Amino acid sequence: MAIPHQEKILHNLAEFLTSEQVSVNATIKELHGRDESYHAMQLPDIVVFPETAEQVSKIMKLSQQYAIPIVPFGLGSSLEGHVIPEQGGITVDFSLMNKVLHVDAEDFLVTVQPGVTRTQLNKELKKHGLFFSVDPGADATLGGMAATNASGTTSVKYGVMRDQVRDLEVVMADGTIIHTGNKAAKSSSGLHLNGLFVGSEGTLGCFTEMTLKVYGIPEFVTAARASFPSVKDAVEAVVSILQAGIPIARVELVDEQSMRQVNEYNDTAYLEKPTLFLEFHGNEAGLKQDVEFMEEIVQGHACEEIAFETDTAARNQLWEARHTLAYAYIHGYPGKKMMVTDVCLPISELANAVGHARENLEALGLPGGIVGHVGDGNFHALIMMNMEDPDEVARAQEFNGRIVEYALKRGGTCTGEHGVGLGKQKYQQQEHGAALEVMEKIKRALDPNNLLNPGKNIKVETKETIK
Amino acid sequence: MAIPHQEKILHNLAEFLTSEQVSVNATIKELHGRDESYHAMQLPDIVVFPETAEQVSKIMKLSQQYAIPIVPFGLGSSLEGHVIPEQGGITVDFSLMNKVLHVDAEDFLVTVQPGVTRTQLNKELKKHGLFFSVDPGADATLGGMAATNASGTTSVKYGVMRDQVRDLEVVMADGTIIHTGNKAAKSSSGLHLNGLFVGSEGTLGCFTEMTLKVYGIPEFVTAARASFPSVKDAVEAVVSILQAGIPIARVELVDEQSMRQVNEYNDTAYLEKPTLFLEFHGNEAGLKQDVEFMEEIVQGHACEEIAFETDTAARNQLWEARHTLAYAYIHGYPGKKMMVTDVCLPISELANAVGHARENLEALGLPGGIVGHVGDGNFHALIMMNMEDPDEVARAQEFNGRIVEYALKRGGTCTGEHGVGLGKQKYQQQEHGAALEVMEKIKRALDPNNLLNPGKNIKVETKETIK
Repeated sequence: MAIPHQEKILHNLAEFLTSEQVSVNATIKELHGRDESYHAMQLPDIVVFPETAEQVSKIMKLSQQYAIPIVPFGLGSSLEGHVIPEQGGITVDFSLMNKVLHVDAEDFLVTVQPGVTRTQLNKELKKHGLFFSVDPGADATLGGMAATNASGTTSVKYGVMRDQVRDLEVVMADGTIIHTGNKAAKSSSGLHLNGLFVGSEGTLGCFTEMTLKVYGIPEFVTAARASFPSVKDAVEAVVSILQAGIPIARVELVDEQSMRQVNEYNDTAYLEKPTLFLEFHGNEAGLKQDVEFMEEIVQGHACEEIAFETDTAARNQLWEARHTLAYAYIHGYPGKKMMVTDVCLPISELANAVGHARENLEALGLPGGIVGHVGDGNFHALIMMNMEDPDEVARAQEFNGRIVEYALKRGGTCTGEHGVGLGKQKYQQQEHGAALEVMEKIKRALDPNNLLNPGKNIKVETKETIK
Repeated sequence: MAIPHQEKILHNLAEFLTSEQVSVNATIKELHGRDESYHAMQLPDIVVFPETAEQVSKIMKLSQQYAIPIVPFGLGSSLEGHVIPEQGGITVDFSLMNKVLHVDAEDFLVTVQPGVTRTQLNKELKKHGLFFSVDPGADATLGGMAATNASGTTSVKYGVMRDQVRDLEVVMADGTIIHTGNKAAKSSSGLHLNGLFVGSEGTLGCFTEMTLKVYGIPEFVTAARASFPSVKDAVEAVVSILQAGIPIARVELVDEQSMRQVNEYNDTAYLEKPTLFLEFHGNEAGLKQDVEFMEEIVQGHACEEIAFETDTAARNQLWEARHTLAYAYIHGYPGKKMMVTDVCLPISELANAVGHARENLEALGLPGGIVGHVGDGNFHALIMMNMEDPDEVARAQEFNGRIVEYALKRGGTCTGEHGVGLGKQKYQQQEHGAALEVMEKIKRALDPNNLLNPGKNIKVETKETIK
């Protein structure tokens, strides 16, 4: 079923886009109707593939003219239904805007188009001895990572996506093209739009260019894998390492169930115990001292086995095992869909929160494991659901609700890095209270007709103002 | 001259504030009519000293009821006229809200009231082996530092004020009390209000409580002072140190003229050459290796003298000399007022920018020196002006304009850390372009009657909506 004015809109789009840049093909629409989450598919009416900010601006103007929603799309690796066009409309796919425009090694900056992926960027940066720090696991686009304020394994040292953004070129709802920042390391000029647009999930504008902070590849890197009798011991060891001021670059928790899944999927023989995957970056002497101190600390927390990996290949294998974990579960439970929870709490609350999550998984009879970016207080329960079994889906939803409730009561957040999308809408009032109204006022001020990814992140009612 | 309804407003204030908490005393008003800048004094009509967020909320409601502006006030150490009540009204002085509410050592967090000063906080934190990293020189209040997104000597390692804020309790224009964040290390929930409110200079709301990130006192600290034949050599040495990936905790440039002023004021005998003040934090072994590498690099940049200070007293003396520099100038030019420029550029542009500033100081016949947080690409020219000499004032303004112009053309900002206040208004359109309109829309959405520190940062026209 076509949207009102579909022919007119297609005619208008053809005025500035080639026929390859506009699609109403059923397969293309299906590819843009879902993400990697369990949320139900819904199709866009039209998919466009712009190549410039000016084209995006014209698309935005058509969106206003015909009151048709706009959904920006990177690679569809979001985990809460962010890119699902709930109300149909035009999906703006950024895959043709995939160029690394400028590497500025002296300033530790890179300027990219939003469709560039994380590994594509790192391949380019490696030539300059640089790397981009944010690593959410998936090979997402940088535009998508900025839209959700992605983070991941390295955030404990280098920060989240928001910390890396110096400037965004953004096309606003009315087609205006703005820059949210500049290339200086810091600024106290005006309101901080960088931070506001990062994490806005396409609800305030579409990103068309990004200037990001990059880092020199560290001189020395040491990785370690440490096994503990319990999750609590592992988490307490992390807290002690942080307390001691040892600068960790990565620290991931993988629970017993998930280590089993890792071994099955990767054909590895790691000890099937709660395990920390750690990494340290620095100079040779400093690293040696840090790692010795770390080893002493984990021994004090009943560590049962610790193995170090200093060469690159072995380190890559270690992180590969961690990164493929979600796929290991998907592979292990054919036909089921994955729900990934994403709470983040103050680190002092983490050990108990993980314990609470494990108890509730078991009480609700849900298969799944717990992994976490524990240096940040962020953990995920990966739950495999049979979407045909309404009771199992209801129990998974119940589980998610319980751990969110637990986190919010202890100063945490319902989503550490995945974003709100559709799945975390229901917790926004409880998490933000009166601040939610402030967010809604900003959304209404910048998208008065509610056409930018409507229904995601900040949900507002559409006013009856469109002719 | 009293404002309209002044008696009624005082009567209403007396309903929830004691007589000590409300003042119309001329001396008190004068103390709240200026900051540390050259901007002309203007008096508030009433000064209030609330003790709770609820009292601030009631003050905000009176502000709306009587259409009277609100100006929040910490200690008045702002440098661009931020706290000057240009349109009169009520100044809200936060000096009675000066309690460190909670030190949460395990989570590296502290919760404070906005009137707490930086040194007061650090005194409290020291008992826990912790410190607060942002050091703008002045012993400002933390509320004021958040309002301007202050930074300073340590930002190259620890980040700016915005990076430290986990949560703000904010009283909005209509009296609503919100929380902008939570206690988790990261979040992708909702819009990022923390970043938006930090640096908003009292134009979006008043802060009444803040949860801030703190750090463990580093195990080892080494400070150094390195002299160079030219400012260009010094800046290039810094770029090389950063390129080498050596983690600097502080790196300050003090030019020849300013070293002379330092020696005169502090009775020291430092070499009167362009000098870098450096500091490194880390473990013993790592620090030794970093410092050796750094020494090698500065020698390659024609360093003429390098002196190390490892003991706390000598280090403190070194930083004391740097921190008192502004006062050294004020002392050296009695009767004059100081204008401090504050551009920040990509580091690759810094050496030329500092050279350009020095040339223009000389071409315009202005006395003053250049200092800078060079690791961030941020530098200040300290210019002493005779406010009675319109020509000198005009030349200083001309100078400021020239270096801002220079920075903006090269991807920089007109203010790295001091904020916009009154002084940087005139550069906002050029710096932000179409983004300025987005900022104005946010300001109008959150302060529709334009009563929160009107005329500062984001300047909008007052609508005729007040009865």
